[in-house]
Amino acid sequence: MTSSDLLELRRDLHRHPEPAWREFYTTARLVDELESRDLDALYVGREVLSEEDRMAVPDDDELDAWFERAREAGAREDVLERLEGGYTGAVAVLERGEGPTVALRVDIDGLPITESDEADHAPVAGEFRSQNEGYMHACGHDAHATIGMGVLDAIAESDFQGTLKVFFQPGEEQIAGGKPMAKSGHLDDVDYLLAVHIGLDHPSGEIVAGIDGFLAVSHFEAEFTGTPAHAGARPEQGDNAIQAMAAAIENLYGIPRHADGATRVNAGIVEGGTATNIIAEEAFLGGEVRGETTELMEYMQEKARRVVRSAAEMHGCEVDISTEGEAPSARSDDALVDVVSAVAGANDGVTSLVERDSLGGSEDATYLMQEVQANGGLAAYVGVGTDHPGGHHTRTFDVDEDTIGLGIEVLSQSILDVASSRP
Amino acid sequence: MTSSDLLELRRDLHRHPEPAWREFYTTARLVDELESRDLDALYVGREVLSEEDRMAVPDDDELDAWFERAREAGAREDVLERLEGGYTGAVAVLERGEGPTVALRVDIDGLPITESDEADHAPVAGEFRSQNEGYMHACGHDAHATIGMGVLDAIAESDFQGTLKVFFQPGEEQIAGGKPMAKSGHLDDVDYLLAVHIGLDHPSGEIVAGIDGFLAVSHFEAEFTGTPAHAGARPEQGDNAIQAMAAAIENLYGIPRHADGATRVNAGIVEGGTATNIIAEEAFLGGEVRGETTELMEYMQEKARRVVRSAAEMHGCEVDISTEGEAPSARSDDALVDVVSAVAGANDGVTSLVERDSLGGSEDATYLMQEVQANGGLAAYVGVGTDHPGGHHTRTFDVDEDTIGLGIEVLSQSILDVASSRP
Amino acid sequence: MTSSDLLELRRDLHRHPEPAWREFYTTARLVDELESRDLDALYVGREVLSEEDRMAVPDDDELDAWFERAREAGAREDVLERLEGGYTGAVAVLERGEGPTVALRVDIDGLPITESDEADHAPVAGEFRSQNEGYMHACGHDAHATIGMGVLDAIAESDFQGTLKVFFQPGEEQIAGGKPMAKSGHLDDVDYLLAVHIGLDHPSGEIVAGIDGFLAVSHFEAEFTGTPAHAGARPEQGDNAIQAMAAAIENLYGIPRHADGATRVNAGIVEGGTATNIIAEEAFLGGEVRGETTELMEYMQEKARRVVRSAAEMHGCEVDISTEGEAPSARSDDALVDVVSAVAGANDGVTSLVERDSLGGSEDATYLMQEVQANGGLAAYVGVGTDHPGGHHTRTFDVDEDTIGLGIEVLSQSILDVASSRP
Amino acid sequence: MTSSDLLELRRDLHRHPEPAWREFYTTARLVDELESRDLDALYVGREVLSEEDRMAVPDDDELDAWFERAREAGAREDVLERLEGGYTGAVAVLERGEGPTVALRVDIDGLPITESDEADHAPVAGEFRSQNEGYMHACGHDAHATIGMGVLDAIAESDFQGTLKVFFQPGEEQIAGGKPMAKSGHLDDVDYLLAVHIGLDHPSGEIVAGIDGFLAVSHFEAEFTGTPAHAGARPEQGDNAIQAMAAAIENLYGIPRHADGATRVNAGIVEGGTATNIIAEEAFLGGEVRGETTELMEYMQEKARRVVRSAAEMHGCEVDISTEGEAPSARSDDALVDVVSAVAGANDGVTSLVERDSLGGSEDATYLMQEVQANGGLAAYVGVGTDHPGGHHTRTFDVDEDTIGLGIEVLSQSILDVASSRP
Repeated sequence: MTSSDLLELRRDLHRHPEPAWREFYTTARLVDELESRDLDALYVGREVLSEEDRMAVPDDDELDAWFERAREAGAREDVLERLEGGYTGAVAVLERGEGPTVALRVDIDGLPITESDEADHAPVAGEFRSQNEGYMHACGHDAHATIGMGVLDAIAESDFQGTLKVFFQPGEEQIAGGKPMAKSGHLDDVDYLLAVHIGLDHPSGEIVAGIDGFLAVSHFEAEFTGTPAHAGARPEQGDNAIQAMAAAIENLYGIPRHADGATRVNAGIVEGGTATNIIAEEAFLGGEVRGETTELMEYMQEKARRVVRSAAEMHGCEVDISTEGEAPSARSDDALVDVVSAVAGANDGVTSLVERDSLGGSEDATYLMQEVQANGGLAAYVGVGTDHPGGHHTRTFDVDEDTIGLGIEVLSQSILDVASSRP
Repeated sequence: MTSSDLLELRRDLHRHPEPAWREFYTTARLVDELESRDLDALYVGREVLSEEDRMAVPDDDELDAWFERAREAGAREDVLERLEGGYTGAVAVLERGEGPTVALRVDIDGLPITESDEADHAPVAGEFRSQNEGYMHACGHDAHATIGMGVLDAIAESDFQGTLKVFFQPGEEQIAGGKPMAKSGHLDDVDYLLAVHIGLDHPSGEIVAGIDGFLAVSHFEAEFTGTPAHAGARPEQGDNAIQAMAAAIENLYGIPRHADGATRVNAGIVEGGTATNIIAEEAFLGGEVRGETTELMEYMQEKARRVVRSAAEMHGCEVDISTEGEAPSARSDDALVDVVSAVAGANDGVTSLVERDSLGGSEDATYLMQEVQANGGLAAYVGVGTDHPGGHHTRTFDVDEDTIGLGIEVLSQSILDVASSRP
Repeated sequence: MTSSDLLELRRDLHRHPEPAWREFYTTARLVDELESRDLDALYVGREVLSEEDRMAVPDDDELDAWFERAREAGAREDVLERLEGGYTGAVAVLERGEGPTVALRVDIDGLPITESDEADHAPVAGEFRSQNEGYMHACGHDAHATIGMGVLDAIAESDFQGTLKVFFQPGEEQIAGGKPMAKSGHLDDVDYLLAVHIGLDHPSGEIVAGIDGFLAVSHFEAEFTGTPAHAGARPEQGDNAIQAMAAAIENLYGIPRHADGATRVNAGIVEGGTATNIIAEEAFLGGEVRGETTELMEYMQEKARRVVRSAAEMHGCEVDISTEGEAPSARSDDALVDVVSAVAGANDGVTSLVERDSLGGSEDATYLMQEVQANGGLAAYVGVGTDHPGGHHTRTFDVDEDTIGLGIEVLSQSILDVASSRP
Repeated sequence: MTSSDLLELRRDLHRHPEPAWREFYTTARLVDELESRDLDALYVGREVLSEEDRMAVPDDDELDAWFERAREAGAREDVLERLEGGYTGAVAVLERGEGPTVALRVDIDGLPITESDEADHAPVAGEFRSQNEGYMHACGHDAHATIGMGVLDAIAESDFQGTLKVFFQPGEEQIAGGKPMAKSGHLDDVDYLLAVHIGLDHPSGEIVAGIDGFLAVSHFEAEFTGTPAHAGARPEQGDNAIQAMAAAIENLYGIPRHADGATRVNAGIVEGGTATNIIAEEAFLGGEVRGETTELMEYMQEKARRVVRSAAEMHGCEVDISTEGEAPSARSDDALVDVVSAVAGANDGVTSLVERDSLGGSEDATYLMQEVQANGGLAAYVGVGTDHPGGHHTRTFDVDEDTIGLGIEVLSQSILDVASSRP
């Protein structure tokens, strides 16, 4: 694939941003590309996911609407069929003789953000602005998928000895796709795993050899159900779902800090009630907890559940709490970071090298990293700088397309060096 | 107008339920009927409203959509023009020589409730189910407007001596239309005011001569604005609008009870935040306070505002509080209740007479009652029983159409007796 | 007993104010007086109390200290022995032939208030200021006990036909003594019960024939127990009793109002924690709920318990909730009020007669009233006006001693009339 | 001073534990010892404190009671006079020719804890249990003061060249004495400062060359004042101080975590209200905030004040917030830690050497450390292990007296090496 083909691929993905479990067009387009290559195996949809570990799967209506939209956008019918029910994503395998198994993980989903339509927004000028109004590749996953394809090509053309697996992961933004992919079995024989993220406020030309500081995270949804009543005529007959939720929120933020490290909690979304004169029957709370380690996140999670349950009980309400996404913490292994660092240091296109940096957020590549590390393998999360006019998750976000090639170079050379040196 | 015409009118209004300030079809249809009568004056739209006292007026897009819908439903273009900008409602005047000025107030708006489509719901069987999907006459205001028309006809055909004014009031459900109509000047010369409500759990054949126990009420909206921040990466940079709102809610319910009488408070609607990992920049709270007297409502209102403002300040947020609807308490005058009671007692159709009952809710007819009483006049709020299969404000509510005629009889005879006896 | 003897008695009681279950001197002094009379029966201490219904009994150290104090003040040793363990109070019985059984209930306890030592405070001038520093008869129970004695004398000297029982009740201020006395069995044969209160902002010369509007009340204590931890070093190891209590308080005030009538809740006393740097292991909350009816009080009580328990659970704490005092609501019977009203109307000393008034507070005479009414008897609560310089429960409270005699006259004449007319 | 004299001194101090600003006996005893030495200067009371920086000074009654107690325990009258008003503490100065000025800081105050009276508690067996019932040297400050005296003797007898200042600091437990001593001017010429703490879960024989991880801290007291009212009769007339405090507590714990490091908050002591039926006029909250850095503590402090003020305002109360103790964070300088480490490594009595450890709590030696560092000097906080049967701040705490001598050895040798090597 020429670099102009890759560019075209990136722009086509950019035109069709799709959120978690709805990456129908995206997966179909990728599979279409992958099938034209000389792969040793290609797994798609259900084949790459542990069914029971999927989180935050939308309802059928929602899935159907996106499925139909992908079809109308020209997605291949035979591939779409393999994705039915929201089983998106793919794993491509290249076997090239004796050698370790090296994996690259890229994510492919978009965000529910309306893309800028200003003339100075490059996708507008270049005519590849989102066609899925209200959704956008505002975090560069279109570039990630493209890098995955490019690395596959580069390794295919190299003298690589070993096996390469490229994971095209769905649902990262909702930290919903990492776990089912990590538990799919495809990582069982992986010796080395690289994951990649573009941007993160690092400029074009800068490479971060190892990113750490992933906070373990868990998203939850709490649905409070009480008893409605007329607030004027019969206030005593209500069991107030909004009052229960307010008590929960106040006390969620009051979960004790932990001496072992950073913790976080947020009540990020609320909705409830139908009228000012009705005591609310229903209230919805979307929140999350985090921890510097998985244990700290679990400490917060346990306390948060207790708070939410007690608040419901306090006001005579029922509450249903569900986990909608989860990711552990993880750490990039020194040996792997050293390889990437050496490769980047030797690459003329790299104008700045950062050994290690801290993300300070969450990412479910950590599920895959942990899985590999638990099996005795090594993992690292690599940052590829890119000038981005708007911040991540804003409507004016865009990537410097020139950095896609640099990312492919650094990652494929790292894979080659890892395979030969077996650090 | 024959009783079958009245029935047809009621059903046509039922087909076109419209909420506050959007009663375009309703007003146009009523005006069309009224113009066919021998009235001495007919005031429409802006002419019947004190502009500065309108509350909860929707934005232009919303008004335009309903305006267009009314036009498509066949509303008269020349009348619609007089209603532009959401100035709905009408006052019809009949002058019949020397005598007191007696007024009847009926309300005309519908509710945002989806009407039942079950076969056993009479409007389905009778083919007059709501054509404005999601909206419904679920409180009988279609019957009220019809009663207003019927009383006008009955008095026109009687030997009534005096002036009759019928107020067709918009926006009662949001207690938004009573004040601007009360302050319009049309009540200045009114000596006696009757208001009417159908149903209220009183069966067909029962008349309540005087309803009291209106709780004074005020609806408010509070919009909290804070500073968004990433909940994982920079929690300290947020000013949390949801946390502020939760503190407000917890403490709103904790406003001290009052020894002078009943008070109420409710946080009925909440909405806020955009994502679990973002500290919410905005949160919306729709609530209300009530009091057995206007003073008690004002006590609650003052305390509620203090709670909301302090909660915002506590969490570094701004808050904008607006009043979206308001009604005072009121009492039906004995002298007028006595007249209605005597009339009802003498009517064979009345199978049960209740002297006085308590509403236990709120109603902005109280603005009109207070206005008349302040001018030295008398006012009473009359209940006309009707069997209703579902409760008020539920999707299976409907009225027993036979009771419309009884309501017209009792009210028109009461008006005649009031005019002659001048109680 | 002459009126100067009664005055001396009142002043002696005033000198020795004793709180609930510690009325050792008071009971001993009253018993000493009663034994000098020609009574048919005199019951003391355990004999007048249902043991299992006693509430808010202090611990042994506290009881011992007051016991000793009473001894030192000269209380008769043989009577004191009958009061050991905090069994205070007495019932005096006078049988005078055939006739109904009429009871008078007076209370005898004092308050933990430091009495004024200003020269213009009558007990200072008259040298009968409290000798129990920190305690005071600040609600006139010294006068009540005196009235009880005076009525006994007046009836003894009259031509009364029937049985008179005078209940000298302990522990009214903590609403702790009414129930055990009501359940003692001594009310079983009572046909008519009068209770009396002096003052209540009614001036000297005014009689209130029937007081109502007693709010049913229940006092509770909640002791939260958590796990202490160093707030700096190990915040996550604490289960914070103060945080649990704060959550309880916020939500106690938020218990929904009730459409059936007035309710109240108060968190009146808090105490907890030992140091700023220790997460509190213990926190104490003293509170109360009230209702216009006993049912409404019970509604509040049930909700309050749920709030307290859930708040404890929310923060990993245990909580022990105990009821420390309780009284139902009650109503004075019309027939009895009529008798008192007629008597008062005919008494020249009565300058103002109020038929009925509302207390707006609580009082555990209601237990006795309910008991009599449940047995088919009648009860009324009578107010005897008295000019009082300071308000009830303030350090400058005092009674106009002249009104004691008027109270005795009105009550004894009422008892005579009740016995003869059997209303 | 022989080691048996030092032991006697330690036990005498142990017998007379005195809390902040009440170290009358302690200071007098120390001054008595110091005056018997060949010092170049001795400053006492007011002379060693910056008056305006004193915090948490008790009221006169409290000071007088302890003053009297010290006198009765045999404190020298002439010294006591110099301490009047709660000006305790001393600074001893030894000048030995040219050389740097080295300071040692020890603290001297006790805790409000009742000492164990079990036979196996060494002070019971050794007959030096606290004579100030309810107070105890439960953190080893008696040993600290003794070490200070021993170091002074050791240096006096050595060939030390330079100036030694020993700071006997009052009020550490309430972090109240560090700032006024730091600001007294006596540190202005200090080049090196050592502070010392015994125990901290380090066993006998272990030395920690440099302790860090002091959380900056600020203690605050908030006094809420509202308006009392009868909770049954007039709930609306109250401005509820307890309700305001509860709102403050709930929201204090909800102050956002900070990405830059650890923060803490605690509401450690509450007290309020007088009766269950009175809406509380007053409520007291004693709390604290901490931060991994002084900036983080100040972030918490600012937010805490906002929460407290807004909570008061929310419920119509006034609030008075005062700072009752404060300490910054600090770090032990490497160069000084290296010296102590080398000394400890060379001492045969030291069986275990810990280079650096983290306190995880707070300590106001940091004020003195910062002051010296701000002047260009170096500071280190040294830990001297000691087996302690009970934990710090528990009633069975005690020190292994043998470790006092080891502490003196390590510290005096460190001072000698510092003076000669000028690191």
